[in-house]
Amino acid sequence: MTVDHSVPYLPRTPLLFVVSGPSGAGKDSVLAGLKKTAENLQFITTMTTRKPRAGEVDGVDYTFVSPEKFEQLKAQNEFLEYAQVYGNWYGPPKEAIRQALRQAKDAILRVDVQGVASIKKIVPEAVFIFIMPPSLSELEKRLKQRVTETPVELALRLNTAAQEIAQLPLFDYVVVNNGGSLHVAVNELKAIILAERCRVHPRKILL
Amino acid sequence: MTVDHSVPYLPRTPLLFVVSGPSGAGKDSVLAGLKKTAENLQFITTMTTRKPRAGEVDGVDYTFVSPEKFEQLKAQNEFLEYAQVYGNWYGPPKEAIRQALRQAKDAILRVDVQGVASIKKIVPEAVFIFIMPPSLSELEKRLKQRVTETPVELALRLNTAAQEIAQLPLFDYVVVNNGGSLHVAVNELKAIILAERCRVHPRKILL
Repeated sequence: MTVDHSVPYLPRTPLLFVVSGPSGAGKDSVLAGLKKTAENLQFITTMTTRKPRAGEVDGVDYTFVSPEKFEQLKAQNEFLEYAQVYGNWYGPPKEAIRQALRQAKDAILRVDVQGVASIKKIVPEAVFIFIMPPSLSELEKRLKQRVTETPVELALRLNTAAQEIAQLPLFDYVVVNNGGSLHVAVNELKAIILAERCRVHPRKILL
Repeated sequence: MTVDHSVPYLPRTPLLFVVSGPSGAGKDSVLAGLKKTAENLQFITTMTTRKPRAGEVDGVDYTFVSPEKFEQLKAQNEFLEYAQVYGNWYGPPKEAIRQALRQAKDAILRVDVQGVASIKKIVPEAVFIFIMPPSLSELEKRLKQRVTETPVELALRLNTAAQEIAQLPLFDYVVVNNGGSLHVAVNELKAIILAERCRVHPRKILL
């Protein structure tokens, strides 16, 4: 008779939520919406060797580290996964997740779809959530609005998105981000988190 | 790319939610709270041979039938479970559930804890939700407020409640109904329903 979700969530098992989805699905917008009202939820910042862009805050947008530091943590197996994009390394550090769990907080992180299969091997008990665009044509529209995309880049991204969507069966939940009604997607993500907190047999993370 | 939870929930697999919990946990209050704002959710009315009490509406509070009719459905194996209480029969009819699922609506029903083990055998893919009082002492307080309880009845009910709470591991989710903040429990129940609707691998009911 000690279960209690309403008040301070005291003896509850802390959880790990992994959010992913194709580029252009709106993962960042949905997570930003969640962040505004999330309680007891630690957003895990990705570590990168990339230089900060204008306006980016260390520890918030990314944790910026030297290539040497990244290499050291990689050698110590201290990333949940890591990937090189355009010559820069990216990876969510395990220690940040452990720290959240030790503080009895749920951890949430955002990863690219291609990292999910390997993360599932390390933490099969994480809750995997896929943010989905309402359709490929809508995704194309969104990607076209990003002025940075050339036609070749666009075709490549759409092809990648189709391949990423094929990874859906790896996930536990799917949230459709219907752009115009972002709050619907945010609300679904919040519901998933709250529901997982109500589990009789919670998905305990060993990391 | 046809998944869509936001708008009309079209090609989604309809689900079955089974809500239970000890007497005095406030199942009816939580379900009444849910009913006010639930969308696309069919509340399954229990069939009974008991005579309607003042104010009870046929098909809403219960579906009132003759003992002969109940016996006939029982013989046809048309109840999800059935039980006799003070000489009257009670049971949720399978056909009402099938009807909801055929209409692509999720079905939700309220049963006593002792019925859950046998329901799990028939529909293991149902989502089982336990409504829990915050503590046994709080439950005692609530039961005492019901003027109908004699001290012997009260002791019996508390003992039954303790036995029922021991059945918690049979359930998927637990919602603590902290009386004073009913909306917290209703919100958790709604989150569970919404989250289950977002499952990549939904729990398909065969009935």
